[in-house]
Amino acid sequence: MAKRKPKVMRPKALPPRGFRDYFGEEVRARNAMLHKITETYHVYGFDPLETSAVETVEALGKFLPDVDRPNEGVFAWQDEDESWMALRYDLTAPLARVYAQFRNDLPTPYRRYAVGPVWRNEKHGPGRFRQFYQCDADTVGTPTMAADAEICAMLSDVLENAGIARGDYVVRVNNRKVLNGVMEVVGLLDPANPEEHADRRGIVLRAIDKLDRLGESGVRSLLGEGRRDESGDFTGGAGLGGEQAEIVMGFMAARRDSGGATCNALRALVQGSDTGLSGVQELETIAELSDAQGYGADRLLIDPSVVRGLGYYTGPVYEAELTFEIFDEKGRKRQFGSVAGGGRYDDLVKRFTGQAVPATGVSVGVDRLLAALDAKGRVAKGSVGPVVVTVMDRDRMADYQTMVAELRNAGIRAELYLGNPKNFGNQLKYADARNSPVAVIEGGDEQAKGVVQIKDLALGKALAAGITSNEEWKAQPAQMEIRRSDLVGEIRKMIARAG
Amino acid sequence: MAKRKPKVMRPKALPPRGFRDYFGEEVRARNAMLHKITETYHVYGFDPLETSAVETVEALGKFLPDVDRPNEGVFAWQDEDESWMALRYDLTAPLARVYAQFRNDLPTPYRRYAVGPVWRNEKHGPGRFRQFYQCDADTVGTPTMAADAEICAMLSDVLENAGIARGDYVVRVNNRKVLNGVMEVVGLLDPANPEEHADRRGIVLRAIDKLDRLGESGVRSLLGEGRRDESGDFTGGAGLGGEQAEIVMGFMAARRDSGGATCNALRALVQGSDTGLSGVQELETIAELSDAQGYGADRLLIDPSVVRGLGYYTGPVYEAELTFEIFDEKGRKRQFGSVAGGGRYDDLVKRFTGQAVPATGVSVGVDRLLAALDAKGRVAKGSVGPVVVTVMDRDRMADYQTMVAELRNAGIRAELYLGNPKNFGNQLKYADARNSPVAVIEGGDEQAKGVVQIKDLALGKALAAGITSNEEWKAQPAQMEIRRSDLVGEIRKMIARAG
Repeated sequence: MAKRKPKVMRPKALPPRGFRDYFGEEVRARNAMLHKITETYHVYGFDPLETSAVETVEALGKFLPDVDRPNEGVFAWQDEDESWMALRYDLTAPLARVYAQFRNDLPTPYRRYAVGPVWRNEKHGPGRFRQFYQCDADTVGTPTMAADAEICAMLSDVLENAGIARGDYVVRVNNRKVLNGVMEVVGLLDPANPEEHADRRGIVLRAIDKLDRLGESGVRSLLGEGRRDESGDFTGGAGLGGEQAEIVMGFMAARRDSGGATCNALRALVQGSDTGLSGVQELETIAELSDAQGYGADRLLIDPSVVRGLGYYTGPVYEAELTFEIFDEKGRKRQFGSVAGGGRYDDLVKRFTGQAVPATGVSVGVDRLLAALDAKGRVAKGSVGPVVVTVMDRDRMADYQTMVAELRNAGIRAELYLGNPKNFGNQLKYADARNSPVAVIEGGDEQAKGVVQIKDLALGKALAAGITSNEEWKAQPAQMEIRRSDLVGEIRKMIARAG
Repeated sequence: MAKRKPKVMRPKALPPRGFRDYFGEEVRARNAMLHKITETYHVYGFDPLETSAVETVEALGKFLPDVDRPNEGVFAWQDEDESWMALRYDLTAPLARVYAQFRNDLPTPYRRYAVGPVWRNEKHGPGRFRQFYQCDADTVGTPTMAADAEICAMLSDVLENAGIARGDYVVRVNNRKVLNGVMEVVGLLDPANPEEHADRRGIVLRAIDKLDRLGESGVRSLLGEGRRDESGDFTGGAGLGGEQAEIVMGFMAARRDSGGATCNALRALVQGSDTGLSGVQELETIAELSDAQGYGADRLLIDPSVVRGLGYYTGPVYEAELTFEIFDEKGRKRQFGSVAGGGRYDDLVKRFTGQAVPATGVSVGVDRLLAALDAKGRVAKGSVGPVVVTVMDRDRMADYQTMVAELRNAGIRAELYLGNPKNFGNQLKYADARNSPVAVIEGGDEQAKGVVQIKDLALGKALAAGITSNEEWKAQPAQMEIRRSDLVGEIRKMIARAG
């Protein structure tokens, strides 16, 4: 009988479901972009804050006290003392905790930025992961609209500094209070009894959000008696009369060429609502302050059709949208869409201290912005592959390593081939896989003559692909012999040519 | 009866036990240092890898299959499908998983670096947190000592690029195989039966590690019959005879002026052990390759007294030590000590694939290195506070914001005061709290004349502290009136003077 080896149970080499790894250029491109964003935040006077990934579930505050195990949307577990901890799901909840904890030591107002991963215990799918980056900036502790105008201007600068050209984006601003004013005017919101009609207001909000898809008549149906779709399904309406529905439609269509004109149109709609008028006044102030700083209607637009986040924020709401067209996964042209959003929320710290603290801020969608830069060919190409010094004679590793050290000391990214040097073809394959611009070759003959061969791999690839004509090939050989003492200078020239 | 408000249970504004927050300059200084380290890794041809914070417990592999709940040292929880996930406790375990998963797509050898937080579910204490940064570089897939020599050279460059001067650090190299050779020679290790005498080898290792504290005679006692300390407690010894103990003592004391001489001394000690001789040969190769690259004995030292990690690694072990003195928390002078360590480990991927994959790497202790730079006054002072434009007239926010925009567009960090402007003293207090170099003041009189006041807050502080003599005060006033149109230029000059 043959001996049987005991069966070995090996762990699977996979990340948990919904998580992924980032390699090489992906990491560098994201870091380069985040650096540009945070440097813009820095020039605006915002200070970095880095909280830990883990918070108490109590501080995150997404859970009811009678829920035994908090697992709605977050990754949570119990500490040894039985208290629950969880991975943060955004960067705003930790800011609230920090501001409550350190409010006596922090400047007022407190401008802070934060960058880092957040975690969501949600269904994942294509392009949707359970860990992703956020990059936020918030101003805590001031009600002035100057703070909101500043955030909008900064958002413009962030996009331009990251590589989005002026004209390729717009920052749209709306205000929750104006919408509330509209709700008051059409009879769906009574300031004395704000809970009443919450359902019908929800229907109105969702209807506004569907304008793109359903068109005006579809939205009108939803504002009124309801709407039956093509499949026969019926969606209940908000029950507004024709005149009331017109006010809502007018709100969505109130955008004019200038912020001032838009505000005038809105003001006419919310006459009679103090909240609505105050919201219009806020938008007007933002438009004025922005204009004064040179952030005019080509970049910053008062736009009542922005509804994303209107349910969450308490005052101004902003959204940065990229206006150029891309082809989606089905090959259809469409606008790139939103890459950042934010707004004002006034109960950030109240949960902790009982005291209302006004705050306003923005969150940049790191992965979406990176995808946009990629689509525009503007991802920072910070990294070429390394120069690869090959090994012709394994007894002369010290000589080869000396070459590498010279290149590195000159700031040139370089590597010694550290695999098995027996098969020289494998060394060139390795250089190719590393996207190496230049390979260095020095055998015994070269050493005796005091020369080395340098091989222009970028040009080699172009030649192999037939990109380069014969004359150019003759004028500029893909491989040349140079003096050993000229190594650094010649390679620098070759890289400059390839770049 | 007075009405009683319902009692509100408010969450505590605290992070979980053992976690902390990092503010402003702390974040920027660490990022600046990490940037310098990773740029050095980059020039050496290492590619970044960013894995997610979460791995399967199976892949982390610290747990026995029959343990119900993995909580030894890691933060772990169950996914919806009942599988266990955990926060990574280092950056090496994820590298092993990634290399096993992508080994056919990655270059061989694979040089990778990684930066990020890791989490330990351990007792925390002063200066010891449950989340901290690591910054690693590893070369996977090659057994050549050229890889180890490269890591040691890179470690030197990392320290110098981060701001540690040559002469203030040394990279010490030892080799597990030499120690194993010594164990063989003294009869504590039989290659045919490696499990035997494991306890006694453990005693020898711990004795070597205590040389600093116990001195030679104390270590000799532990190598022999054992040692009774001052309190009367007895520690059992390894039971070596006098001649055998001398060999171990000789191993620890084998360091000579040059790597070659040290290797000769070691070779004499391990005669008869193939493993030992192979280890000496490895050290010799590292010393030769390092010398050839210009990393001589002033930076890289073959040093058999390095034992940290000898139990974990399988070949060369390295440790970077800072040699300058600092005062510890008790005011005593001591050497700063270790800031990085690493070595060769050859079973990185075997758990997953069954195939041995040689690897060698280093981990930089981010917080310790930052503390060292701080002690040397070399923490990057990348950030001064922002220029603060004050608000004299709240109806002219647009004018003030325009000034701020001009400064920011010129790359000068600047803020508009966004707190309540009523009390002007509070505005200057705010500027002070922000470590602002300059405050800008423009009231109605100034506006009418087309001028602004700029206040040199750095100089003001120096004057208040009596640092500046009267003559200088006269020559260089802390506040001056400039033309509004000269704002950017004059502030630039004032900041340059303050810097």
